[in-house]
Amino acid sequence: LEKLERHFEKELERLKETLLRLGSRAELSIEEALRALTQRDTDLARRVIENDEEIDQLELEVDQICTDLMALRQPLARDLRFIIMALKIAPELERIGDLAGNISERAIELAAEPQLKPLIDIPRMAGLAREMVRLSLDAFVRHDAEAARAVIKRDDQVDALMEQLFRELLSYMLDDPHAIGRGLRLMMVGKYLERIGDGATNICEMVVYLVEGRMIRHGGIHQSGEGRA
Amino acid sequence: LEKLERHFEKELERLKETLLRLGSRAELSIEEALRALTQRDTDLARRVIENDEEIDQLELEVDQICTDLMALRQPLARDLRFIIMALKIAPELERIGDLAGNISERAIELAAEPQLKPLIDIPRMAGLAREMVRLSLDAFVRHDAEAARAVIKRDDQVDALMEQLFRELLSYMLDDPHAIGRGLRLMMVGKYLERIGDGATNICEMVVYLVEGRMIRHGGIHQSGEGRA
Repeated sequence: LEKLERHFEKELERLKETLLRLGSRAELSIEEALRALTQRDTDLARRVIENDEEIDQLELEVDQICTDLMALRQPLARDLRFIIMALKIAPELERIGDLAGNISERAIELAAEPQLKPLIDIPRMAGLAREMVRLSLDAFVRHDAEAARAVIKRDDQVDALMEQLFRELLSYMLDDPHAIGRGLRLMMVGKYLERIGDGATNICEMVVYLVEGRMIRHGGIHQSGEGRA
Repeated sequence: LEKLERHFEKELERLKETLLRLGSRAELSIEEALRALTQRDTDLARRVIENDEEIDQLELEVDQICTDLMALRQPLARDLRFIIMALKIAPELERIGDLAGNISERAIELAAEPQLKPLIDIPRMAGLAREMVRLSLDAFVRHDAEAARAVIKRDDQVDALMEQLFRELLSYMLDDPHAIGRGLRLMMVGKYLERIGDGATNICEMVVYLVEGRMIRHGGIHQSGEGRA
């Protein structure tokens, strides 16, 4: 029995490590996608898209470890909650990886046309979004609901930058119809970053649930951020 | 022990029912959001947004039942996989509800301006997306991997309609700068519908996993559909 116990603890540790690895990979993808966009580096953009496979693989690994853990023995309430959260956090991170891939796709398209404008808000949004992802995982690992709440608050900054970006791009598009295609692509990049921020927010809401046993997501703290036009 | 067994079976049945209820609510929201958009009915749009609470509540209920089930006893491999899939399908459905809410937000904004054009592609996309959601849940309930694969194929039709919509709206925007704001909002609606199709696709990929024990998601069947501009 003691052996089973140790095996369980080891697997639980492996679950945490795999989730963190998944998180780091997703963070790195955001960083590289942004670099590809700002430096018009299509090779790098293509690498981000290819590397998404690795992220997908890590999500499957999380599912597998969770299944094993639950088959091993009946987990205690707290471990059970942790496992359930891991199962829900992994897809959020996988989706963040996908969004980095989407940014890279737009980067490739934009590199084929002249630059519309120097990018200012987008790198700032990306920095914020990336930090939110990192801090959300920190909060998860440390079971820190306070830290999680702080991350959730930051989402407002991402949303505010999106609003600003949106208005600026719209004015470019109104001034010059030739800018519409590029303006749209940059708006999409902004939207992807906004959704990365939403993903980090979702993770933090789960951390609060994990620690405090109550769900804040649906209490109205979180505004989806979708929808300016 | 037999009593525990029966209780477990009953809870498993309740899990299935709750998921289906969640799915029906999400489907209804898509339908109503579209009606609000096409009939410029802002009251209905607001109702869809308010009703999202109910969908959120159902997702929490799914989480709770899954937690209870796993605390009750060590589930068999097949039940375990079912529970894990339920935990992953519920957030997809909740997200679909959110997207219906986003469509409703755009519907309210669009109702304040003159109609840009008669809506043709958007209702067709919505019909397809809604059907994909319904069929994905059917496939889930019937453990039917074949049906799930058929739904995944339909996602191409949604993507093709999106492409068509995108090009048409772009030409409106190029012709008349006054159309840019409304064109953008309608593009967003198209994007939300595309993401609803993606959500149904995700559910179907999980059904295949549930039935066949292997994941097809990351084999390249699924293209995110994001990204025309």
